[in-house]
Amino acid sequence: MTGIGSVSIQQRYFPDIACFGCGPSNERGLRLSSYEGEDGDVVARFTPWPEHDNGLGFLNGGIISTLLDCHSAAAVILEADRRGWPPLAGLPLSYVTAGLDVRYLRPAPLEAEVELRAAVTSASEPEMDAEVELWHDGKVRAAATAHWKRWRPRM
Amino acid sequence: MTGIGSVSIQQRYFPDIACFGCGPSNERGLRLSSYEGEDGDVVARFTPWPEHDNGLGFLNGGIISTLLDCHSAAAVILEADRRGWPPLAGLPLSYVTAGLDVRYLRPAPLEAEVELRAAVTSASEPEMDAEVELWHDGKVRAAATAHWKRWRPRM
Repeated sequence: MTGIGSVSIQQRYFPDIACFGCGPSNERGLRLSSYEGEDGDVVARFTPWPEHDNGLGFLNGGIISTLLDCHSAAAVILEADRRGWPPLAGLPLSYVTAGLDVRYLRPAPLEAEVELRAAVTSASEPEMDAEVELWHDGKVRAAATAHWKRWRPRM
Repeated sequence: MTGIGSVSIQQRYFPDIACFGCGPSNERGLRLSSYEGEDGDVVARFTPWPEHDNGLGFLNGGIISTLLDCHSAAAVILEADRRGWPPLAGLPLSYVTAGLDVRYLRPAPLEAEVELRAAVTSASEPEMDAEVELWHDGKVRAAATAHWKRWRPRM
């Protein structure tokens, strides 16, 4: 149920999704794998690819945003399941991202693993907020507030 | 000096940079090319790759954030040059992203070209803000406020 080594949140809730950032079935994607941590946060590790350069030898801000967005998704989808808010009427996911407010705080490495931590900070069935951070070597490199909305089928 | 067909802002100011989103020299990157538009905005077009799926058949939010970030860079670097704020003391770029606040407004297509528009909305030498939008078929699909800071060498 918890920790690295068990089935990822992505594998558990959407194994067939081809999301560029976290879809288990996207062979050319980042395939971020997120897990329930022992302290209640959702955690992940990611090793950047050489082409994820920001042009200055560090991890690219767009890739950082992708990781923060997708990792917050794992926290939100897990929370939704716990609260009994499953995907509606044939939709593949329960929530979709409405906004992502990223602060780039320090350079993040291109050639070393980075860690991600996320927690849902407010939850109602129509919308949720999550705080998500990218860490390396004991320092937060980037942080974001992710705003998610219940995904409802269009009439 | 203006419009599609001339040298891109990226080629003009940082041809050797390997940024994942907009570095002309990153052969595995998105190689976004941005230009001065006739109305003063900075404009670009981008055709998504098949792996840029959001898992639901639309353009991935992380890739959208990457495009918005890098396209705002082009507007900021151009503005910096116009105002006489060049890169400092051996640094390759004049400004770095400090924050990106993205609103995902509507799905963006995976299998069609998207358009980007950016404009600097406030500029002082220490920091600049830019508004940047991703359009398709006459509708804004995502928009962001990008906050940039003057890149100063660390002591």
